[in-house]
Amino acid sequence: MHHLKQDDFAAMEKRYRAAFFNSLSGFKPLNMVGTVSAGGLTNLAIVNSVVHLGANPPLMGHIMRPDSVERHTLNNIRQVGYYTLNHVHAGIYQQAHQTSARYPQQISEFDACGFKPLYTGICKAPYVAESHIRIGLSLAQITPLQINGTYLVIGNVIEVMLPDNTLETDGFIDIEKAGTLAGAGLDGYYETRRMERLGYAKP
Amino acid sequence: MHHLKQDDFAAMEKRYRAAFFNSLSGFKPLNMVGTVSAGGLTNLAIVNSVVHLGANPPLMGHIMRPDSVERHTLNNIRQVGYYTLNHVHAGIYQQAHQTSARYPQQISEFDACGFKPLYTGICKAPYVAESHIRIGLSLAQITPLQINGTYLVIGNVIEVMLPDNTLETDGFIDIEKAGTLAGAGLDGYYETRRMERLGYAKP
Repeated sequence: MHHLKQDDFAAMEKRYRAAFFNSLSGFKPLNMVGTVSAGGLTNLAIVNSVVHLGANPPLMGHIMRPDSVERHTLNNIRQVGYYTLNHVHAGIYQQAHQTSARYPQQISEFDACGFKPLYTGICKAPYVAESHIRIGLSLAQITPLQINGTYLVIGNVIEVMLPDNTLETDGFIDIEKAGTLAGAGLDGYYETRRMERLGYAKP
Repeated sequence: MHHLKQDDFAAMEKRYRAAFFNSLSGFKPLNMVGTVSAGGLTNLAIVNSVVHLGANPPLMGHIMRPDSVERHTLNNIRQVGYYTLNHVHAGIYQQAHQTSARYPQQISEFDACGFKPLYTGICKAPYVAESHIRIGLSLAQITPLQINGTYLVIGNVIEVMLPDNTLETDGFIDIEKAGTLAGAGLDGYYETRRMERLGYAKP
């Protein structure tokens, strides 16, 4: 058993520390954030921090680091007020990971990584046509987390597209059947196998 | 392809809507939050919203709903200023799910669900002895999200315990080898199979 304390964390090399703490939270959702600037330039960035905030109204959040490649995404969300979240499946995970590279602002990751933008007229941001589960959001608020300079972006879900055979009778979406992968750390990609749905727990 | 819009969301039955939107974010981390009240009563609650916030300083966040069973947990974190996060593995997932039941305040989920509390002297909250990856945190801040009455709880990581064979040479933790499961929706439990680690992406 490794038993690490604050002195051990402080002694870690920078990239080692990033890999370590990015692994700690457990398995992560894998989504690509699709945005467009006021001038019409699209942007696509993988994020592994999307979190359910509430069902009524339907709200989702994710964390963004403005000092990284995510700056273009955050600017676009501010400018246009809409963004999309697009699940990453087994057929596109390598391209999806590639969207995390530091492309210049004038390069769209849709083009650079081989994805096709898709518009519905409801959400003013581009979806990823190759994704199987696609979520359109309008910006609700951007909450700065002053403790470390990151931002919690919160959006209202306004549109959802998903394959017919994935919606179970009680509203549960079989994201595994849609091919959705799980992430770990900064760069681990995982297939899943459902063990069980346990239902509502009572004392 | 299902194509759902805001009118469809509004028409959903309440529990259907909860199942649907809880499934949308993708796969989720599964952790149990261990806490203790100022009076010494322990509490344990599964959460699927833990998110990495930063590596230096090491910060983790999770969402809590004070109107649910998570109220006791939130009170304890406020009172004592410490809490633990404990990964859920294949051997304990049914017990871990059971901690989501609405037990009265005087009942400890450690007892009711068959877990043993473990103290280290560094973190003033109890760990779950049966968990393979255990994280101790001191409370940094509780940020109310006024948009829907939830809270973002942010903690400093002060202690980590993990099995020896799970720490890779670059700091990546092989959480799959530790047996950690992924979640989906409100009640889905999944094993994983690593496809690939892709490394740092460059344009």
